[in-house]
Amino acid sequence: MKPKLLITLGDVAGIGPEIVAKAWSALHEWCEPTVIGHSHFLPPSINVYNPSLVNLENVPSGVATAEAGQAAYDWLCYAIDECLAGRSDGVVTCPIHKVGFQLAGLDFPGHTEVLAARTGAPAHAMLLYDDALPLAVAHVTLHQELAQAVASLSTEGVMEKIQLLADMIPQLCGQPARIGVGALNPHGSDGGRFGDAEARIIAPAILTMQQRGLCVEGPIPADAIFLPSTRSRFNGIVSMIHDHGHIPMKLLGGRRAVNVTAGLPIVRTSVAHGTAYDIVGTGQADESSLIAATRVAAQLATQRMKS
Amino acid sequence: MKPKLLITLGDVAGIGPEIVAKAWSALHEWCEPTVIGHSHFLPPSINVYNPSLVNLENVPSGVATAEAGQAAYDWLCYAIDECLAGRSDGVVTCPIHKVGFQLAGLDFPGHTEVLAARTGAPAHAMLLYDDALPLAVAHVTLHQELAQAVASLSTEGVMEKIQLLADMIPQLCGQPARIGVGALNPHGSDGGRFGDAEARIIAPAILTMQQRGLCVEGPIPADAIFLPSTRSRFNGIVSMIHDHGHIPMKLLGGRRAVNVTAGLPIVRTSVAHGTAYDIVGTGQADESSLIAATRVAAQLATQRMKS
Repeated sequence: MKPKLLITLGDVAGIGPEIVAKAWSALHEWCEPTVIGHSHFLPPSINVYNPSLVNLENVPSGVATAEAGQAAYDWLCYAIDECLAGRSDGVVTCPIHKVGFQLAGLDFPGHTEVLAARTGAPAHAMLLYDDALPLAVAHVTLHQELAQAVASLSTEGVMEKIQLLADMIPQLCGQPARIGVGALNPHGSDGGRFGDAEARIIAPAILTMQQRGLCVEGPIPADAIFLPSTRSRFNGIVSMIHDHGHIPMKLLGGRRAVNVTAGLPIVRTSVAHGTAYDIVGTGQADESSLIAATRVAAQLATQRMKS
Repeated sequence: MKPKLLITLGDVAGIGPEIVAKAWSALHEWCEPTVIGHSHFLPPSINVYNPSLVNLENVPSGVATAEAGQAAYDWLCYAIDECLAGRSDGVVTCPIHKVGFQLAGLDFPGHTEVLAARTGAPAHAMLLYDDALPLAVAHVTLHQELAQAVASLSTEGVMEKIQLLADMIPQLCGQPARIGVGALNPHGSDGGRFGDAEARIIAPAILTMQQRGLCVEGPIPADAIFLPSTRSRFNGIVSMIHDHGHIPMKLLGGRRAVNVTAGLPIVRTSVAHGTAYDIVGTGQADESSLIAATRVAAQLATQRMKS
C-alpha cells in the first residue's frame, strides 16, 4: 500500500503549479498524491483540494502578493493538521515566497518555522538528503549572517543536530547512522593554529554522543569530509555552517538533493529550490526536485507505517 | 624548447622523494626537470643538485626534524634565486612540514611566505587551478580562524585578489579573464537579511574593477557559483574564505587541482597536498598532483618565455 501524501502548491505566482503538472504522473510511482492548492492553476486531471477561502483568480504570476502568501499558508496549515490527525502520511511542499508571507502579515521566514510552531516540535533540523549516495546533511547553523553563525555555535547545538540526524537516518536509508562531523575553521584549525572551535565546541559534542552509543567521528576539515574516500564512511554529515554543507551537496547531487525536516512528529520534505519567479511560464521549470522530494517523503512515510 | 623547471624536494621525511621518483619520467613530457634536493633519497637516474650543507643521512622518515626543515628551506631559496637570476624558468615545490621549519628556527608558516619575502612581491595570492576545467580560484582570506577571516574582509582585499587573478588567467589558460566573485554569507545575504558584507564590501570592489575594464561579476552565492551552469561562464572565481573555494575545487578536480602563486616575479606551482608522514614508505603516495603542478608550471613558463 502506497502512502498518502499531500503536495502543497506553495506560492501560485511561482513555479509550483508548473512542476506539479509536469511531475504529476511520475508521483504515482511512490504514493497516492493529493495537491492542496487551487484547481485554477492546474490541469483538470490533477486531484486537488482547496481548504483556503482566498480568492486567487486575479493573482498575477511572477510577483509576490498577500493573496498568494495567505493561500500558501492556509494550504500548509491544512496539510500539517491532516498529517497530525493521521489522515495523511506526509507533506511535500512546493516553494513559498517570503515576501508573500510578509504581505499577508505572516511572521514566518519560511515553511520550517510554520511546521515547528504548528506541530510543537521542541527541536528540529533542515536536512539536505541525497538518496542516491545515500547521504543526509544537517547544519548546526543555517540562515544567518556568517559572523553571527560562527559566534552562535555551541556544544549543545552540535549535539542536538547530531541527535536529530541520527534519529532520521534509519528512516531515510534503512541503515544505522554513521555520522561524520565537519570542522568550522580551515584545516579544522590545524591543531589550534587557526582557532579553537574544534577543540572547545565540536570535539566535546562528539565525545558525549559517542558515550551515548552513537557512531560519530570528527571534527574533519570541511574541504575533506565530502571527498569520496571520506564520505563513503558515513551516511550522515553534520556541517557547522550553511555553505559547508550546501556547496558539496549541490555539486554532488544537482537536483537530486531534497530538503527533509528532522524532529517533527510528521513526515515533511520539500523541493530544494525557490519560487523562481523569473522563469514562470517559460517552460524551463524542472520538476525533478519535486519528484525526488516525493520519493523521499514516500520512503519516510513507509518506514513510519512499518514501525 | 621545453622550460627548465626546478623541483624542490621539500621535507625528505615526507612523501616528496617518493612522488618525485614515481613522477620523474612523466615530468619530461612538459619540461627539463632538475631536482633541488639530496641524492640519498632518490634513485640514481634522477638529475639532482644539492646546494645545502645540512647532513641529512641520519634523518628519520615520517617525523619533523630541524635538519629536514633547514634543508627544505635551503633548496627553496636556491631555486628562487636561480629563477630570479633567469637561469631557470620556474619552481615546482614538494611539501614542507611547518614543524620542521619551526625546529630549524625558520619563522615562516609555509612556502608562500618565503617566496613573497625573497622575491619582494608586494602582493600575492595562492590560487587553486584545475587546467581541465579550466578554472582558477583565488581566496580573499585563507589560513586563519574563520571569525577573524570574516572580520578582516575589506573592499581593498577583494580588489587585490581580483586583480592578481585577472593578471594570471591569460598565462594559465590563454584566455582573457572572466571572473565570478563569490558571496560571504548564506544566499549571498539574501538581500541583506543575513548580513551586509555583500553590499558593503564585495559589490563596491566588483564595481571598481568593472570600471577598470575587467570582466567580473557577482557577488554570487557560494553554493551556486561552482555549479556547472554558473561556473561555465568563468575561468576565474574569487572566494571569500578558504573552504568556499577548497570544498568545490577538491570535489571537482580531485588530485588535478594545483597550487599556483600569483603576484610573484617568478613561476611557482606546488602540489596541493602535505608531507603525509603517515603513509611514507607504504607505496600509497600518489604522484599525480606533482605531475599536474609541473604541467601547469611548464604552461606558465612557456607563456612567459613567449611574452
